[in-house]
Amino acid sequence: METIGFIGAGNLGTPIVTNLLQAGYKVKIYNRTREKAQPLEALGAELVSSPAAAAVPGGIVMSLVADDKAVESVAGDELMQALGHGGIHVSMSTISPDTSRILAAHHQKMGVTYVAAPVFARPEAAAAKIGNAVISGPADAKERIKPLLQAGFAKNIFDLGEDVGSANVLKLMGNFMIAGAIEMMAEAFALAEKNGVDSKVAYEMLTTTLFAAPIFRGYGAMVVDRKYVGNPAFSAALGLKDMNLVLQTATRSHTPMPLAQLVQSRLMTVVARDVKEADWTALAMGALEDAGLKG
Amino acid sequence: METIGFIGAGNLGTPIVTNLLQAGYKVKIYNRTREKAQPLEALGAELVSSPAAAAVPGGIVMSLVADDKAVESVAGDELMQALGHGGIHVSMSTISPDTSRILAAHHQKMGVTYVAAPVFARPEAAAAKIGNAVISGPADAKERIKPLLQAGFAKNIFDLGEDVGSANVLKLMGNFMIAGAIEMMAEAFALAEKNGVDSKVAYEMLTTTLFAAPIFRGYGAMVVDRKYVGNPAFSAALGLKDMNLVLQTATRSHTPMPLAQLVQSRLMTVVARDVKEADWTALAMGALEDAGLKG
Repeated sequence: METIGFIGAGNLGTPIVTNLLQAGYKVKIYNRTREKAQPLEALGAELVSSPAAAAVPGGIVMSLVADDKAVESVAGDELMQALGHGGIHVSMSTISPDTSRILAAHHQKMGVTYVAAPVFARPEAAAAKIGNAVISGPADAKERIKPLLQAGFAKNIFDLGEDVGSANVLKLMGNFMIAGAIEMMAEAFALAEKNGVDSKVAYEMLTTTLFAAPIFRGYGAMVVDRKYVGNPAFSAALGLKDMNLVLQTATRSHTPMPLAQLVQSRLMTVVARDVKEADWTALAMGALEDAGLKG
Repeated sequence: METIGFIGAGNLGTPIVTNLLQAGYKVKIYNRTREKAQPLEALGAELVSSPAAAAVPGGIVMSLVADDKAVESVAGDELMQALGHGGIHVSMSTISPDTSRILAAHHQKMGVTYVAAPVFARPEAAAAKIGNAVISGPADAKERIKPLLQAGFAKNIFDLGEDVGSANVLKLMGNFMIAGAIEMMAEAFALAEKNGVDSKVAYEMLTTTLFAAPIFRGYGAMVVDRKYVGNPAFSAALGLKDMNLVLQTATRSHTPMPLAQLVQSRLMTVVARDVKEADWTALAMGALEDAGLKG
């Protein structure tokens, strides 16, 4: 079976590579901090010492790293040369649509196809292959990578067309809406608590009827129970990075987004106060503490 | 079968009374504008000419009117005397929790029990009896009215305890969260449109996965298609009234709610600009027009 290069053995990369190995793919894994990839080596992945060493000529390399700079640093000329003509770079990180477009143009010059395929999944959802993929880029490359996304983490794949930036925009929209939902619940539950309403009943009502969606169910429980510190599935720092990308994209396209500014401020406060082990749900502390409640 | 008094033949009162009649209840209906209740007379309701005339001694009167003032004006001493000892007033309007508490105390003095039972349902959901009821007040009165709520509109009933204000607070939380969801989608879809993303695909992705809840599905389509003007199911003016109640309750309880302030401003603008036949979803025009898009 095909050998796949994978760059990034983080919270999401690890379950995805594990799934790819279980599906029978050979995986060459690169991670900047080598030790983090060693558990995957134990599962059968080949640990390599540079991004380019993960590539097979004409093959597929998937990258899932922290931010724009990290993608730019791994997707350099060496990786392009190693992938060569017919090669595909599947860029799964949450990055700016502009970065995707600039990288895609550079890839094309080097004969490599760039596909944007950001991941909608918490680590446990990726592990269970019930995540969602959104993809954009050239049609034939998208067809070629779909089985990999399905084997790795995705229950559903949504195709956003040829402009590579589109999938990145949708990923930012989704993360903005999650952050907005957390703010919304923080304010609503603050109102409940300040007015003697049983938060658990209110949570049960709202998240089994009008707001019966995984986002409200999951994050709502974390807000009501103040369970957003310790072992973060998605850290406040990463949430802040994403809201910065939302505002950057909004600013460049002249799109005023006051709610995005609010949640970005909330996350900035969590990071500024150096709340240890904070999941991004900790942005709820803002509305709760502003109301004099325990954050 | 029992005779029920019903006050208010509006968008929601009409389908609820229709359901009660179909379930075999006898209904005495009062509406300030008599003509609006005539279709219900045709279905078998008895049209009466004052709120008190809707009451049977020791019986149940349900009210579903526009705002706090309207509830205060119908639930006066005449209605109390007509209901008398053992009577129950089921107050279904979206009003301030404080108004509920004040009314409940006055009812009690007159021997009548006040139950708060605001309605979570658009008219078509009420008609289909798939709405949600939230109730608060004395336990025995709540037990007695449950079959009526089920016959009238409710698939689920959530009990918020003895403090009558609690159900009103939860109703306000829910409406605030719907308004917040509309703002969130307006900002997100503005970002999509300004960045060349296909809104329909983005809508499909977001509302079938992370945000697969009726609120996002229904209101999201209205935002994407700009279908919030003409034949409003819930008008911008009523939405503004509710957000005013949210902020009033927030202010009295010292609960800063910046997102609630934002959506209240958005609705105020829709009303200030006198947008004809505007559903409250028209608050989305704010974010869209701020981005230079068609509102």
